[in-house]
Amino acid sequence: MLTYLDCMPCFLKQALYTARLSTSSLQAQEEIMARAAGLLSKLDFSRTPPENATPLYELIAETSGCADPFADLKKKSNQLALDLRENIRDMIRQSDHPLLTAIQFSIAGNIIDYGAHHDFDILDTINTCLAKGLALNDYDALRRDLKTAETILYLGDNSGEIVFDGLVIEQLDSEVLFAVREKPIINDVLLEDARTCGLDRQCKIISNGTGCPGTPLPRCSAEFREAFDRADLIISKGQGNFETLSEVRAPIYFLLSVKCPVVVRHILEITGRAVRNGDMILLKGIS
Amino acid sequence: MLTYLDCMPCFLKQALYTARLSTSSLQAQEEIMARAAGLLSKLDFSRTPPENATPLYELIAETSGCADPFADLKKKSNQLALDLRENIRDMIRQSDHPLLTAIQFSIAGNIIDYGAHHDFDILDTINTCLAKGLALNDYDALRRDLKTAETILYLGDNSGEIVFDGLVIEQLDSEVLFAVREKPIINDVLLEDARTCGLDRQCKIISNGTGCPGTPLPRCSAEFREAFDRADLIISKGQGNFETLSEVRAPIYFLLSVKCPVVVRHILEITGRAVRNGDMILLKGIS
Repeated sequence: MLTYLDCMPCFLKQALYTARLSTSSLQAQEEIMARAAGLLSKLDFSRTPPENATPLYELIAETSGCADPFADLKKKSNQLALDLRENIRDMIRQSDHPLLTAIQFSIAGNIIDYGAHHDFDILDTINTCLAKGLALNDYDALRRDLKTAETILYLGDNSGEIVFDGLVIEQLDSEVLFAVREKPIINDVLLEDARTCGLDRQCKIISNGTGCPGTPLPRCSAEFREAFDRADLIISKGQGNFETLSEVRAPIYFLLSVKCPVVVRHILEITGRAVRNGDMILLKGIS
Repeated sequence: MLTYLDCMPCFLKQALYTARLSTSSLQAQEEIMARAAGLLSKLDFSRTPPENATPLYELIAETSGCADPFADLKKKSNQLALDLRENIRDMIRQSDHPLLTAIQFSIAGNIIDYGAHHDFDILDTINTCLAKGLALNDYDALRRDLKTAETILYLGDNSGEIVFDGLVIEQLDSEVLFAVREKPIINDVLLEDARTCGLDRQCKIISNGTGCPGTPLPRCSAEFREAFDRADLIISKGQGNFETLSEVRAPIYFLLSVKCPVVVRHILEITGRAVRNGDMILLKGIS
């Protein structure tokens, strides 16, 4: 998915949020915003939004001197989700369709802003999401493809929800590789998050080789690209991975909460299927 | 009120909306957005938001070749409000406090997006606003000051709502000067709007000499500044006029709907009084 003009104000909003998280100096925040606007004036519209976001976050890190402004938030998110794990694992086990239920929890986990909620609110939000169901649901196709898949590549997205990804992986019978980002970028999962949440005890962890909040294949490491090509099935979590892979021909299933109107439009364009902002979807890619 | 960092994403959002209204060429829209971002990278934070918005809209007009992209919208807004005038005039006449009621209609008129509504919806929106009442209400002070005011300067804001400003002016006993913008800027009132809505038959119309969506005194014409200094009382309508005059010492009363969190914060800072986004206020200035 290419970058739309609508992404520009959104990038600047993200820049301001991150600038304030990175430094308390108003002067540094002003410098960051001036440089961010300068960067946007030369935006490459032939790239995906996560690819364009990468130099923006690099610029903020460089100007503020803070390499990982979301570090605390990521730790809190992981801990909050870990505190809920047993409870949710029980609900999955007791359900009629454990894999589908685990997937739904995992997509619902993609909605939550862990920084701003307590345990109780999170369970509440998740239950509201589950009751809403999936707006696009290619689960039957996924279940069929899973039967013959020997190796699965699971592309992680955010900290916190990674715990629910672990509960999905518990329901899979194939060999799973779990992909994280190489360098800190927003609240995306790193190797240390996968370890904190115990995913390294369930499957092999692999880095995608980038500090991009998505999976831009031409920029990923050779090792990752090889794993991507070899996988019988790919589960792609979250909007950033979707934005970078939506038009790649591969056996991908996208699990995400739709978080912006531009993605709503893009989904309609490539699939002819209408979704709304806030919808949870399980979408088969172009294979 | 100075420009905040939070204004930057908002400026870019406004630029995109206006770019799309000004030209259907995607290439021109991209050029506008690139130039707009470039302008924002050199933003002057010692100026008010409307002053910073002026060159932004000038840049859009220059790049697109469309000098007044809101022309149609302004015509429609005026006509819709004119269609409602008799109905609202009756409600004002029948109320216990005609001036206060007229003021409330006029502030409520500041909320409405005329482009997206039909008559019925507008009356509905206005009634909802009226039921909500004023979050800050310095009406008693205004009424007291009006008793001795021989000349009043009324600073107009948007097309459409200018019709309701006319109904406020009908309730005033003093000599009124009504100020419009000199050049097209967003949907702000021009001389032709004042004429279309019949305000030239009620009072003298004066231009503020700028194409700024507010009243930046140092940039206004000498004639306007003289009228400003001479007026016994100034009624300032809308957020743009408030943003440029909030810290000016003068006998001003601000009538506006609060439309952004930055203004919410600014009102708290200068008055110590808390308002919420969406609130309607009648606020006495610093005299």
